[in-house]
Amino acid sequence: MAVNSPIPVSTDLKPVAGIVLGYAEAGVRKANRKDLLVMQLAAGATIAGVFTLNRFCAAPVQVCQAHLAQATAEAPIRALLINTGNANAGTGAEGLARAHETCAELAVLLHLTPEQILPFSTGVILEPLPVERIKAGLPQAIANLQADNWFHAAESIMTTDTQPKAASRTLRIAGKQVVMTGISKGAGMIRPNMATMLGFLAFDAKVPQALLNQLVKDAADQSFNCITIDGDTSTNDSFMLIATGAGELEITSADSVEYRELAAAVTALSQHLAHQIIRDGEGATKFIEVTVEDGKSVEECRKIAYSIGHSPLVKTAFFASDPNLGRILAAIGYAGVDDLDVSTLNLYLDDVWVAKNGGRNPDYQEEDGQRVMKKSEIVVRVKLGRGSAKASIWTCDLSHEYVTINADYRS
Amino acid sequence: MAVNSPIPVSTDLKPVAGIVLGYAEAGVRKANRKDLLVMQLAAGATIAGVFTLNRFCAAPVQVCQAHLAQATAEAPIRALLINTGNANAGTGAEGLARAHETCAELAVLLHLTPEQILPFSTGVILEPLPVERIKAGLPQAIANLQADNWFHAAESIMTTDTQPKAASRTLRIAGKQVVMTGISKGAGMIRPNMATMLGFLAFDAKVPQALLNQLVKDAADQSFNCITIDGDTSTNDSFMLIATGAGELEITSADSVEYRELAAAVTALSQHLAHQIIRDGEGATKFIEVTVEDGKSVEECRKIAYSIGHSPLVKTAFFASDPNLGRILAAIGYAGVDDLDVSTLNLYLDDVWVAKNGGRNPDYQEEDGQRVMKKSEIVVRVKLGRGSAKASIWTCDLSHEYVTINADYRS
Repeated sequence: MAVNSPIPVSTDLKPVAGIVLGYAEAGVRKANRKDLLVMQLAAGATIAGVFTLNRFCAAPVQVCQAHLAQATAEAPIRALLINTGNANAGTGAEGLARAHETCAELAVLLHLTPEQILPFSTGVILEPLPVERIKAGLPQAIANLQADNWFHAAESIMTTDTQPKAASRTLRIAGKQVVMTGISKGAGMIRPNMATMLGFLAFDAKVPQALLNQLVKDAADQSFNCITIDGDTSTNDSFMLIATGAGELEITSADSVEYRELAAAVTALSQHLAHQIIRDGEGATKFIEVTVEDGKSVEECRKIAYSIGHSPLVKTAFFASDPNLGRILAAIGYAGVDDLDVSTLNLYLDDVWVAKNGGRNPDYQEEDGQRVMKKSEIVVRVKLGRGSAKASIWTCDLSHEYVTINADYRS
Repeated sequence: MAVNSPIPVSTDLKPVAGIVLGYAEAGVRKANRKDLLVMQLAAGATIAGVFTLNRFCAAPVQVCQAHLAQATAEAPIRALLINTGNANAGTGAEGLARAHETCAELAVLLHLTPEQILPFSTGVILEPLPVERIKAGLPQAIANLQADNWFHAAESIMTTDTQPKAASRTLRIAGKQVVMTGISKGAGMIRPNMATMLGFLAFDAKVPQALLNQLVKDAADQSFNCITIDGDTSTNDSFMLIATGAGELEITSADSVEYRELAAAVTALSQHLAHQIIRDGEGATKFIEVTVEDGKSVEECRKIAYSIGHSPLVKTAFFASDPNLGRILAAIGYAGVDDLDVSTLNLYLDDVWVAKNGGRNPDYQEEDGQRVMKKSEIVVRVKLGRGSAKASIWTCDLSHEYVTINADYRS
């Protein structure tokens, strides 16, 4: 299921100069599906990432962080190795050894050092990584390394996703062309905390490492860090931003117009990929934006927005198109904003004013609420009336299909 | 649905001297169901309560708190008025006026002042309380005020509950008899924060007000404050403890053996009522205890226990009897205990040692996990290996039936 059979993924994704991608059917968990992806970066690329804050962060996340910290201009990161079917999380020291082993194998094949590889895994937690199958699949992936494999790459990282998630943009900044392509995957255990399950976004401009580190955080905070399907923060969340430097534009300063335009484009594309994850959320039938305005701080706005976005009662009401909107008030009330005075609070559903000054709006008619609830895209807007801060998150409803998918996922 | 068609409720509940109960079919929301309850207390009773911390706390909760604060020895609380079908929450100033109006009507009928009445409501939020129907139902409720109406009272406060929840105990403390009877209701929007949706527990011992205030908090903290069905803290949570003083025992000091024995009995009965709520949780097919041990603080143990208890992925795995136990590790990891070192963590499912020192226990066999997951009562035990604090919570699984109930609740 997916909301509005989401924005069709273009199969005409644009190659980003400086990156080639190769995939394989390695049979990590199931046969006859693309489950292995190699991304190879040309010399001169910079890469930065944000990772899950889950304390049970997966072995590949730990290896990624170590390799990124060790990378130098002389021995930079040159390849990414991604598998689905197994998260290599909750696997202890043995899991770390297996992640290292896959890096070592790919390093031999690509004539790199193991430290120049970043590994990523997604799938079932607490199972040993089938490292031999991954190693056996690598030659096939390397054999088909090509610049125009982005669509296959998006397919290769899918798990319970019903559709691949990818998008390209070509922009002109200061007269120079920038090509940008990204892919991501969902579709459950989604409440990213620093990044989404897996997301990779590359462009061909040249960006210094320190700036890229900042840019990936900023973009994630406004995209992948603003979505939730089920409130479950994954052990494997990783979002990587790659600047190949093989194109026309070179950024030298964060204070430049060029940087601001590039950053805006990266953020917009990240949001697009994040929204695709929600639209294809497990069992999702509705795409819901929750905006909380006029708060004292962004933090309290986010707390309230997530409280609404995580409430099973709110989510099932959306699924049923039932304007049982008191459930939204209850979720606001238990969000943990201890000094919240509800008497200045107003609630809107799209254009319908539902609650006024903390109580039911006397002009609110149930049929108006019903009309909005029937839509497949809905904006919930809360005005706190106590400041000027604002935050938005994006979420979906909770359907029978979600229970079905997650009661059967491993079967 | 209910787990193991929960502990059958005795229809032989014991009257508590000093309390009479009367019910009516007032048609608050639906016809032909008991939806109105009056509890009248004899002179000399003391009463204390704990209430929801939801900032959208309902009008009756606000009135209860005000009336409790105003009560004196000369003008004590003498009656409780409870309706289902409408929560009178998210109703602003008009909601307060309506709650006061119902108190005023009952006060006239019972020859009391309105401030001697405590009102309680449960049901749909954001709808105006149908105060005329409640007023019209009061004479019927008063006409059948009787000491042995506890079972009817338990039925009168049900909403989506499939079974009434009630229990009685008779104990002997210091040679004196104490009779204790309680009732409660669930069954969704359950993650009490200070108290459950609605719970009333009365006994016939005499307890000074200050001690009763402490006792109700202590009992709630070990019972209703340790359960969760869907993580949604209600706007109307209220748990009331009534000491009629009409029996043989009189407590005078918190340091007495008598008080400790009475407190233990109150806590045990509160836990029993709280467990009944979980067993009859919306769509529940399993009763799950989550115990987190060897923590640095009770607070971090509770955080982790609730993180497991709220995870939709963990809950759907329980529903499916699928030992996809990595989901439990993920929930532990994102619980918000920032300095958690998973390398000292162990996870058990009943007697099965699943994760050892943060990774999969090499001796763990999936069929052992499967065996436990098939049971309808399961203990999840997490040993953090970093201290001596401990906490337990009780929860249920997430089934198709939960979605069905909450997608149809108002229909």
